[in-house]
Amino acid sequence: MIVSDNNPGTAGNSRDRHVIGVDFGTLSGRALVVRVSDGAELGTAVHDYRHGVMDECLAATGEPLPPDWALQDPQDYLEVLRVAVPAAVTAAGIDPASVIGIGTDFTACTVLPVLADGTPLCQLPGFAGRPHAYPKLWKHHAAQPQADRINELAQETGQDWLGRYGGKISSEWEFAKGLQLLEEDPVLYRRAQRWIEAADWIVWQLAGTETRNACTAGYKGIFQDGKYPSSEFLALLDPRFAHFATDKLARSIMPLGARAGSLTAGAAGLTGLPAGIAVAVGNVDAHVTPPAAGVTEPGQMVAIMGTSTCHVMNGDHLAQVPGMCGVVDGGIVPGWWGYEAGQSGVGDIFAWFAEHGVPGRYAQEAARRGVTLLDLLSEQAARLQAGAHGLVALDWQSGNRSVLVDHHLSGVIAGLTLATTAPEIYRALIESTAFGTRKIMSTFTEAGVPVSELVIAGGLTRDPTVMQIYADVTRRPLSLIDSAQGPALGSAMHAAVAAGLYPDIGAAATAMGRRRSAVYRPRAADADVYDELYAEYELLHDYFGRGANEVLHRLRGIRDRALRPQHHAAVPGAWARR
Amino acid sequence: MIVSDNNPGTAGNSRDRHVIGVDFGTLSGRALVVRVSDGAELGTAVHDYRHGVMDECLAATGEPLPPDWALQDPQDYLEVLRVAVPAAVTAAGIDPASVIGIGTDFTACTVLPVLADGTPLCQLPGFAGRPHAYPKLWKHHAAQPQADRINELAQETGQDWLGRYGGKISSEWEFAKGLQLLEEDPVLYRRAQRWIEAADWIVWQLAGTETRNACTAGYKGIFQDGKYPSSEFLALLDPRFAHFATDKLARSIMPLGARAGSLTAGAAGLTGLPAGIAVAVGNVDAHVTPPAAGVTEPGQMVAIMGTSTCHVMNGDHLAQVPGMCGVVDGGIVPGWWGYEAGQSGVGDIFAWFAEHGVPGRYAQEAARRGVTLLDLLSEQAARLQAGAHGLVALDWQSGNRSVLVDHHLSGVIAGLTLATTAPEIYRALIESTAFGTRKIMSTFTEAGVPVSELVIAGGLTRDPTVMQIYADVTRRPLSLIDSAQGPALGSAMHAAVAAGLYPDIGAAATAMGRRRSAVYRPRAADADVYDELYAEYELLHDYFGRGANEVLHRLRGIRDRALRPQHHAAVPGAWARR
Repeated sequence: MIVSDNNPGTAGNSRDRHVIGVDFGTLSGRALVVRVSDGAELGTAVHDYRHGVMDECLAATGEPLPPDWALQDPQDYLEVLRVAVPAAVTAAGIDPASVIGIGTDFTACTVLPVLADGTPLCQLPGFAGRPHAYPKLWKHHAAQPQADRINELAQETGQDWLGRYGGKISSEWEFAKGLQLLEEDPVLYRRAQRWIEAADWIVWQLAGTETRNACTAGYKGIFQDGKYPSSEFLALLDPRFAHFATDKLARSIMPLGARAGSLTAGAAGLTGLPAGIAVAVGNVDAHVTPPAAGVTEPGQMVAIMGTSTCHVMNGDHLAQVPGMCGVVDGGIVPGWWGYEAGQSGVGDIFAWFAEHGVPGRYAQEAARRGVTLLDLLSEQAARLQAGAHGLVALDWQSGNRSVLVDHHLSGVIAGLTLATTAPEIYRALIESTAFGTRKIMSTFTEAGVPVSELVIAGGLTRDPTVMQIYADVTRRPLSLIDSAQGPALGSAMHAAVAAGLYPDIGAAATAMGRRRSAVYRPRAADADVYDELYAEYELLHDYFGRGANEVLHRLRGIRDRALRPQHHAAVPGAWARR
Repeated sequence: MIVSDNNPGTAGNSRDRHVIGVDFGTLSGRALVVRVSDGAELGTAVHDYRHGVMDECLAATGEPLPPDWALQDPQDYLEVLRVAVPAAVTAAGIDPASVIGIGTDFTACTVLPVLADGTPLCQLPGFAGRPHAYPKLWKHHAAQPQADRINELAQETGQDWLGRYGGKISSEWEFAKGLQLLEEDPVLYRRAQRWIEAADWIVWQLAGTETRNACTAGYKGIFQDGKYPSSEFLALLDPRFAHFATDKLARSIMPLGARAGSLTAGAAGLTGLPAGIAVAVGNVDAHVTPPAAGVTEPGQMVAIMGTSTCHVMNGDHLAQVPGMCGVVDGGIVPGWWGYEAGQSGVGDIFAWFAEHGVPGRYAQEAARRGVTLLDLLSEQAARLQAGAHGLVALDWQSGNRSVLVDHHLSGVIAGLTLATTAPEIYRALIESTAFGTRKIMSTFTEAGVPVSELVIAGGLTRDPTVMQIYADVTRRPLSLIDSAQGPALGSAMHAAVAAGLYPDIGAAATAMGRRRSAVYRPRAADADVYDELYAEYELLHDYFGRGANEVLHRLRGIRDRALRPQHHAAVPGAWARR
């Protein structure tokens, strides 16, 4: 557990009121104490999940899990409430009685089967050894066959919701994972009275009432125009699946910032917070971030840049943006259409390159100077003239999430010579991800949803090379969120609205959110070079990504066949893992 | 100097006769003592050139050289004769009186200006400080503007010799370098009574007579169908250049294996060999190698694989093979058409990757086990299933010498994922060069010059991973030359022919040359995978190399502009070097 005390000098004013934001990430949860009046961050604490991500074996039994599985233990989420919340309050030095609300955000789609009273199936006697009884983490990718069938059928039968998701729903989402549960463990499927996002389950634990938030319902639950996919459609997938939505999903959808209920006595005991305070409805880490940056208006695109990048933006009308992740009414801020797009690989591409493509002398120099290898690479990449490496790359090492929506694409680097160095390739990789963001921005603009401001949040805001290249490539001054814990701050702001301290999230964002404008400005000479390189990126993007040459798909097919065991028994789960 | 004694047990038989082969490489010269009767290699010695390659500055003055220059000092060549030849004789333990001939091979086109008596201009008083007075090494690339103009004019005026060189002569060759001399140092150009390949100059030093060998005259001197380019053509390039060929090049062309003359008393004193023995006409390292492998018949392609690969093959008729380096009557073996093709980057691509793309943990493991990093990478690459890396690459990091004849292309890697490792990329790079060789072989076959056997020589024969992949990719059993010093052995064989011990090079090759057949055999399963990957290579080869997308050329243009100094003074020589 890491505890830090951000703002000790301002703590302890007896008139101040406070809210708690809790950000549930992939490996840990963070609690943050925020002053309602101005959003000052007073204290924070992080608690690591004891079971982390179960992707090799089930902790309870040691049973190996098949490839592409990723599970969690819901008890770990409760431990964050029990440990990190009081630690943050202590770190802030505030009186717990001054806390008037709590808000949460979660990874999504992270979804679990529970009883009607909210009990996770994995906590029932005798079920601890059944993998399907546990929450399936967002990056559980073993439901791809189910997603493929849902997409095929939706296209065949002309489901109008399909266009809201760029033409494809993801294997990560509620329906694909739910169908996998049904097909692979039908007994558990029947026992599951609810199929619920962890984002909503944690609110249930705090407020004692089951709610569904508009964000995950829309982006992950295919809830559009007031309804889920029809029973007729679901029955065509499997007759037993016909009433999946009505039986296991459908509860009243609540807007973001609404009050889900009041903190129960039990949750008060767990957290050390006063019973009866406001509990905000659930939310998602990316979607809760824009208000933390003071962003609530249409046209302000917030790119949350970490291992991957999530782009979220409010729009004042509904449009079909090709290849977006989703558009949801009130999906970010009630009253606007919330658009989401993303790049499946960004920081993880940089990390992959540092791990697999950089000679030891660079690591030695970094160690000698006491900086990270990535910092050293960024520093050396920044010294290069734009375009001087003669390279252009496609940023698809982890597939393409937006515009092309094709997870079976892969990365390309062109222009290599015997003089090419590791920092040059590193810079080309940074640029490739910036080109990917520019492509998403131009796709939005061309679809009639113009981008007026580019705001950056997330861990990569700390890398000045990455930031400057993004400014140059997009020809935009970059605004940066002025908080190191954007999601937790955003959750705290939603708590303030739920508690009635602000009339809506816009007012809360004005008072509590913050960003610095034009922290990085485009440099005209470099931007001119990047216009040329971006034109090359677009040509290769379309050549490799839009069917002119399906080489990347064929390479994946060749790879998968090569990795298949030589005996001909069809055991998909036994394929060699990479 | 490295001296080794290869075959001590058989030395000293007083009836044996011996020949000396001397191989002049880029950084050193090697002498080899060979028994005439069976080609046994009895002793060898290597002598490093004191001045190596002068590509940064002129040794005599310290004057910096412009980019792309590469000079040598001719005195270094003589030192090889003085030091390495007697050392090899000593190592062999033979009586010098048993030596009946000496043959040489050289890098080409390595060319120098000399007086009518053979004196290099750089050895004249007052000329040591003039860069143009020195031999221009084969990889001196500063005559590209001259080569471009020669090619343009030849195409405009329909010169029929152009087709013999795949449609383009190289900046490395005699005419381009000669025109550069004229334009940049006209005084020296006038003083140069001869413009001569080092291959012929060294023979002049041994035999005292000026000769020109059919190989360099044809491949590097545009000597075709009994004549050089016409004075009319040359005058169009520059009126002062009109008589370049007649004045400075043209002497009688002698066939390979002919006797240029007899060892002079002076050369006998220098080398310790008997005066009056046969001196063979000059030859080129790649072209002298096939006989050393016992190859003198049409259809046997010899690939000399080192930092780059040279493909040489005899043909029984003249054909236009698209993108070959050249076809020369008697260019390899008198009586056949000698075809040459090449790949400008092979071993240097592997070396570049090892230097710039491999994490330190691999180098540490290699050091721990006492193997080279390249050996470790080859070992790990060999363990992978064919196709399992999901990658395909284009082997153009140093441009494309044959088929496309485009030195401004660059390398491409496609199929990268976050799971891609360095040994996987390394294997893809090996495969890309094998695809390049397959492309050359199929281009020959399609042009009516079929390849019946693939014989490998050169340093890469020592890498079993590279060899096996070449067998699999080409679906050919690989024959390997059975000598570690193929060029020196080939030169010695030409000496035996020049001395009259064999009637022709075919007979010498039968008696003295040797190769092992089918050392590596194609494995059907891997070859099937490579058929698929080669199809992908061909698609990308044509897309990036034949004009569908000129991105690689544009990237180079962007790079060159980025590296140009920001001030606008036009000083081409002052451009930043890479």
